[in-house]
Amino acid sequence: MDVKTLSQGLDTIWVVLTAAMILLMEGGFALLEAGFVRQKNAVSIIMKVFVDIAFGALIFYFIGFGLMYGKDAGGLIGTSGFLLNGDLSHIVINISHETYWLFQAAFVIAVISIVSGAVAERIHFRAYILYAIAMTGLIYPIAGHWVWGVGGWIGKLGMIDFAGSAVIHALGGFAALAAAIFIGPRIGKFTADGKSNIVPPSNLPLASVGAFILWFGWFGFNSGSTLSATNGSIGHIAVTTMLSAAAGGAMCILFTMFRYKKADPPMVINGSLAGLVGITAGCAFVSDAAAITIGIVCGIAMVLVTEFMESKGIDDPVGAFAVHGVSGSLGTLAVGLFAMPELTKGVGEGYYGLFYGGGWQLLGVQVLGLAVVSVWGFVLTWGALALIKRMMPVRVSRDEELVGLDVGIHGVPAYNQDHDFLDLEQLKNGR
Amino acid sequence: MDVKTLSQGLDTIWVVLTAAMILLMEGGFALLEAGFVRQKNAVSIIMKVFVDIAFGALIFYFIGFGLMYGKDAGGLIGTSGFLLNGDLSHIVINISHETYWLFQAAFVIAVISIVSGAVAERIHFRAYILYAIAMTGLIYPIAGHWVWGVGGWIGKLGMIDFAGSAVIHALGGFAALAAAIFIGPRIGKFTADGKSNIVPPSNLPLASVGAFILWFGWFGFNSGSTLSATNGSIGHIAVTTMLSAAAGGAMCILFTMFRYKKADPPMVINGSLAGLVGITAGCAFVSDAAAITIGIVCGIAMVLVTEFMESKGIDDPVGAFAVHGVSGSLGTLAVGLFAMPELTKGVGEGYYGLFYGGGWQLLGVQVLGLAVVSVWGFVLTWGALALIKRMMPVRVSRDEELVGLDVGIHGVPAYNQDHDFLDLEQLKNGR
Amino acid sequence: MDVKTLSQGLDTIWVVLTAAMILLMEGGFALLEAGFVRQKNAVSIIMKVFVDIAFGALIFYFIGFGLMYGKDAGGLIGTSGFLLNGDLSHIVINISHETYWLFQAAFVIAVISIVSGAVAERIHFRAYILYAIAMTGLIYPIAGHWVWGVGGWIGKLGMIDFAGSAVIHALGGFAALAAAIFIGPRIGKFTADGKSNIVPPSNLPLASVGAFILWFGWFGFNSGSTLSATNGSIGHIAVTTMLSAAAGGAMCILFTMFRYKKADPPMVINGSLAGLVGITAGCAFVSDAAAITIGIVCGIAMVLVTEFMESKGIDDPVGAFAVHGVSGSLGTLAVGLFAMPELTKGVGEGYYGLFYGGGWQLLGVQVLGLAVVSVWGFVLTWGALALIKRMMPVRVSRDEELVGLDVGIHGVPAYNQDHDFLDLEQLKNGR
Repeated sequence: MDVKTLSQGLDTIWVVLTAAMILLMEGGFALLEAGFVRQKNAVSIIMKVFVDIAFGALIFYFIGFGLMYGKDAGGLIGTSGFLLNGDLSHIVINISHETYWLFQAAFVIAVISIVSGAVAERIHFRAYILYAIAMTGLIYPIAGHWVWGVGGWIGKLGMIDFAGSAVIHALGGFAALAAAIFIGPRIGKFTADGKSNIVPPSNLPLASVGAFILWFGWFGFNSGSTLSATNGSIGHIAVTTMLSAAAGGAMCILFTMFRYKKADPPMVINGSLAGLVGITAGCAFVSDAAAITIGIVCGIAMVLVTEFMESKGIDDPVGAFAVHGVSGSLGTLAVGLFAMPELTKGVGEGYYGLFYGGGWQLLGVQVLGLAVVSVWGFVLTWGALALIKRMMPVRVSRDEELVGLDVGIHGVPAYNQDHDFLDLEQLKNGR
Repeated sequence: MDVKTLSQGLDTIWVVLTAAMILLMEGGFALLEAGFVRQKNAVSIIMKVFVDIAFGALIFYFIGFGLMYGKDAGGLIGTSGFLLNGDLSHIVINISHETYWLFQAAFVIAVISIVSGAVAERIHFRAYILYAIAMTGLIYPIAGHWVWGVGGWIGKLGMIDFAGSAVIHALGGFAALAAAIFIGPRIGKFTADGKSNIVPPSNLPLASVGAFILWFGWFGFNSGSTLSATNGSIGHIAVTTMLSAAAGGAMCILFTMFRYKKADPPMVINGSLAGLVGITAGCAFVSDAAAITIGIVCGIAMVLVTEFMESKGIDDPVGAFAVHGVSGSLGTLAVGLFAMPELTKGVGEGYYGLFYGGGWQLLGVQVLGLAVVSVWGFVLTWGALALIKRMMPVRVSRDEELVGLDVGIHGVPAYNQDHDFLDLEQLKNGR
Repeated sequence: MDVKTLSQGLDTIWVVLTAAMILLMEGGFALLEAGFVRQKNAVSIIMKVFVDIAFGALIFYFIGFGLMYGKDAGGLIGTSGFLLNGDLSHIVINISHETYWLFQAAFVIAVISIVSGAVAERIHFRAYILYAIAMTGLIYPIAGHWVWGVGGWIGKLGMIDFAGSAVIHALGGFAALAAAIFIGPRIGKFTADGKSNIVPPSNLPLASVGAFILWFGWFGFNSGSTLSATNGSIGHIAVTTMLSAAAGGAMCILFTMFRYKKADPPMVINGSLAGLVGITAGCAFVSDAAAITIGIVCGIAMVLVTEFMESKGIDDPVGAFAVHGVSGSLGTLAVGLFAMPELTKGVGEGYYGLFYGGGWQLLGVQVLGLAVVSVWGFVLTWGALALIKRMMPVRVSRDEELVGLDVGIHGVPAYNQDHDFLDLEQLKNGR
C-alpha cells in the first residue's frame, strides 16, 4: 500500500459518502414539501422529487454534465463529457471523473428540487417532467459552467461561490420565483379583496424532520465540496455551516416570538434552512462571527420576504424563494464583505472582502455573478414554462386542483385512515 | 503514524460507516412497509423490523456468521466463528474480523426484512420471531456460504454476485414469495369471483421517504461491499448504483403513465428499488449503459410481475417478490451478459459476459447459482413455516386481522388522533 | 502528499462525518418525541428540539465549550476557549480544535434533547429556552469538565466514561427526572384515586423510525468518540454498540410478551435505546458477552422503572429517565464490573473491572463519579427551573394544555387533514 493509493482511496470515500448524504437530502426535500403542503397534495409533491432524482440524474448524465464541466468553448459552454465520454483532462482532481460526476449529480438534483416546492399543489405532472429536463439538462448546467466550469467566464473574473449559494440556491430560488409567478397562486389562496388565506401545513412533524435531514446533508454539501479529505478547510467549513444554521434557527425563534407573539414553526424550520443556504458560498472563507451574522441576517430576511411575497400575491407554498433565492443571494454577497485574506489564499491574490480591506473588487464580481445567474434562472425558467405551455397544460384543471393532485393526477390519496379497500370514485366525488 | 496503520484505519471507518448506512436501511424498510400497509397494521409491521434487527443480529452472532463464513467443510457449510470465536484465518482482509461481522450482520438483517413485508397484516408475531431465527441462523447463512464463504461450492464454480442480487435479494424475495403463498391472502383482498381489491397504502409520504433512505443506504451496501476504501471500483460502483436506480424510477414513471394513464406512486417507489436491487450483483463489473439497461428492465419487470401476482391471487402487500425476487434474479443473470473483461480482472480469468465474448460459461454459472439459492430460499421457508405451524398458529385470528394487528396483537394503535387517553376496549369493539 | 497530512485528513473526515451523524440524532429525537406525545403537542415538542440544536450550539460556542474544555482551574472549571479563542494547547489531538468543538457541540445538543422529552406537553416555551441555555452553558459543561476536561477532578480519579453513559445520559436523565417532578404530571394523567391513564402515542411509526435514526447516529456517537480513525477500538466499539442495542430490543420483546402477553411497541422502542445508552460508557472496554449482558439488564430495568415511575405518579411522557437516567447509570457501573485489562491498557494501569480481578478501585470511582454527575444534574436542573419560575410561568395554562401546545402556544396544529385554509379561532374553540 503506497501513500498515493491511500490518498486516492481516502478522497474517493469522502466524496462518495458526502454525495450519498446530499442525495439523502431528497428525502429531506420530500418530507419538507409533503409536510408543508395540504394533505391532498402530499404524495404528488413527492412524485416530483422522484422526477428530480430519477430524471435529473439521467439527464445530467446524458447532457448536463458535459455542458457544465466539459472542455470549455469561449467561456460559455462545455463541450465534452457527455455520457462521461470524451476529453475531461482539464478537470484535475484526485478522484475519478465518474466519482466527480456523482457528486455533481447530487447538486443538480438539489437545484431542481428547490423549484418543485414553489409550484406545489397546482403544476401538471407531465409539464413538470419537461421542465425538470430543461433545468437539469440546460438551464443549470450552462450557468454552472460560467461559474464553476474550467474556463467559465464568471469564474475567470474571480467569483467565489464555494458550494453554491449562487449557482445552486440563488439560481434555483429565482427559477422557483419565476415558476410561482408564471403558474399563479393556488385557488383560494388570495381572496378578491387581496387578503391572503393561511394554508395549513398538513404535517409539521414531517416537515421538521425534513429540515433535520437537510441539515445533516448540508455537512456533505459544504464540507464535501472540498472534493478532498486532506483539504485543511473541512473542519472550518463544518463549523461555519453549523453556526450559521443555528443562528438562522435561533433568530427565527426569537424574531417570530417578538413579531407574532409566538415561535412560528414553519418560520423556524425555514430559518434554519436559510442559515444553511446563506453560508454555502462562504463556508470555507469567512470567520465564525461572520457565519453567525450571515445566519441571523438570512433568518430575518426569510421572514420578511415571506411576508412580502404574501402581500404581493405571489404564492410560493414552501417558501422556496424566501429560503433559497434570498439567502442564496445574501450569502453570495456576504463573501464580498466577509471573505478573509488568510482563508482565501488558495483561491488567488486579492480575493477578500470589503470588511477586510479587499476593496470593491471581489464584492463587485459577486454582485455581477449573482445578478447573472439569478436573471438567467428566472428568465430561462419563464421561457421554458411558456414553451411547455404551448404543448400541454402547465397547470392542472380546477377540478383536479380542488380534489387534490394526489387523487386527481396520481389516482391515490397520500393518507388512508379508515378504509380497508380503495374506492377511487368515492374519493373523487366525496371531497 | 505508518502507512499500514493508516490503511487499516481507513478501511475500518469505511466499513463501519457503510455498515451503519445499511443498518439505517431498517428505518427505511420500516417506513416503506408501514406506509404501504393499512393504518391498522402500521406498527405491527415495524415491530417485525425490530425483530429483524434485534434477533437477527444476535442469532447471526451466535450461529449464522459461523455457518456462513466459518472454516469450510466440504463446500457446504462453515464450522468456526460462532460468537466470533475460533479459527477465522481463512478470511484475509485489512479490517478486523469483528468489523467484518458488523457489515455482514447488516446484510442478514436486510434479508429477513425483505420477507417481513410479504407477510404483513396477517402473520402472527410469535411465529414471525421463530421464522426470523430460522432465516438468520440457518437458511440465509448456509446458502450464503455456498456463494460467498471461502470454499463454498457455488463460489468455486465462479458465480459473481458482488453485493448480493442473488444471495440477498433473490433468496429473500423467493422466501417472501413462499411465505406469502403459505400464509395466504389478506381477508377480502381477493373476491370470490377472482377480482382483486386495491388495498390503499396508509401513508405514501412515509413509504416514499423509506425509499429515499433505502437509496441512501444502498451506497453503503454496494460501495461498502468492497470492504476496502482503496478498492479502485468504489466510484464506479456508486455511479452504476445511482444510474440503475434512476433508470428504474424514471422508467416506472413513464411506463405507468403509458399503461395506467397516471404516474403510479407505489410503482414509482418500487421501481427505484427494483433498479437498486438489479444492479447489486454487477455494480462493480458492468458499464454505465448496462446499469441503465438493468434499471429499465427491472423497473418494467417489477410492474408486470406485480400485476401477474395480483392476477394469480398471491397477496404480497409491499411487493417484496416483485422488487427483490424478480430484480434480484434479473440482476444476477445480467452479470452473465454484461460483465466486462476489464472490470472483472480481479475476479479471475474468463469471467465476463456473453455480450463481451465471454460465452456461456459465466452466464451458466449465474443461472445455476441463482436457481439454487432461489429454490433454497423458497423451499426452506416453506418448510420452516410448516414446522412452525405444528407448534403455533402462523396466522392471526380472523378477528385480530379485521381489527388490525396493532390493536389485536400489540394492544396499541399506530396512530392516535383525537384521544387524550387510551381506551383499548372501545378501540377493539369500535372498529 | 505526506503521511501526516493524510492522517490528519482521515481523522478530520472521521470526526466530521460522525459529528454529522450525531446531529442527525436530533431528527431522531424529534420523531421519537413527536410520535410518543399526543397529536396536539407534536409540533411543540419538535420546536424544543429546534431550541436544543440552535440555542445549544450557539451557547456552547460562546460559553459552554470554554467551561468544559478550557484550561483547567483547580480541577473544577475550564477557563479558556470561549468563542474558540484563547489557549487550548492542552487539548492534544490530531484534528483542529474547531473540528473537536463540532463533535462536542453535537454531544451537548443530545444532552438537552434528553430533557425535552420529560417536560413534553406542558412546559412553557420561553421557560424551556432559558433552561436550555442553563443546561448547555453551565450545568452540563461544568460536570463535563470534571470527567472529560483535561485536569478535571473526577477524570483524575480515574473514572471511565468512554462516550458518556454518565456525562451525557445519566446527567441528562436525572435532569429530566428533576424537570418532570418539578413541573408535575399532565392534566388527567393520574386520577384522584391514584390510577394512571394511558396516554396513547400519537404516531408510533414516527417514533420507531426515530429510534432507528438514533441507532444509526449512535455508531457516530460511540465509534466517533475515538476522535481518530486509526484508533484500534473502532470496530470493537461498533460491534458492542450493535450487540447491546439488539439485546435491549430483543429482551424487551420477550419480556413484554411474558409480562404483558403482548410485545409492547413503546417498550421495544425504548428497550433498544436503553441498550444503546447502557453500552455508551464501556463500548471500547468490555467484551461482546458483557455488551449483550448490559443490553439485557438495561432493557429489563427500563421496563420496570417505567412502571415504577407510573406507580409513583411521576409523569415522564417519553420515558427519558427510564431510558437515559437508568441505563446511563447501569452502563457507568458496568464498566467497573466488566472492563477488561487488555482493552483498557491505553487508559492506564489497574483500570479494569471487578469481574476481571480489578478489585473495587475502578468500580468505586465509577460509583462516585456517577453519583456526582447525577446529583449535579438533578439539583442544578431543579434550581434552574425554580429560578426561572420566579421570572415567568414554567408551565402553560390549563387552557393551553387542554387545547394542546401546538395551537395554544405556537398557533398551528401539527397535522391538518381536511382543511384547505386555517381558521385558528375555530381550532382553539372546537377541541
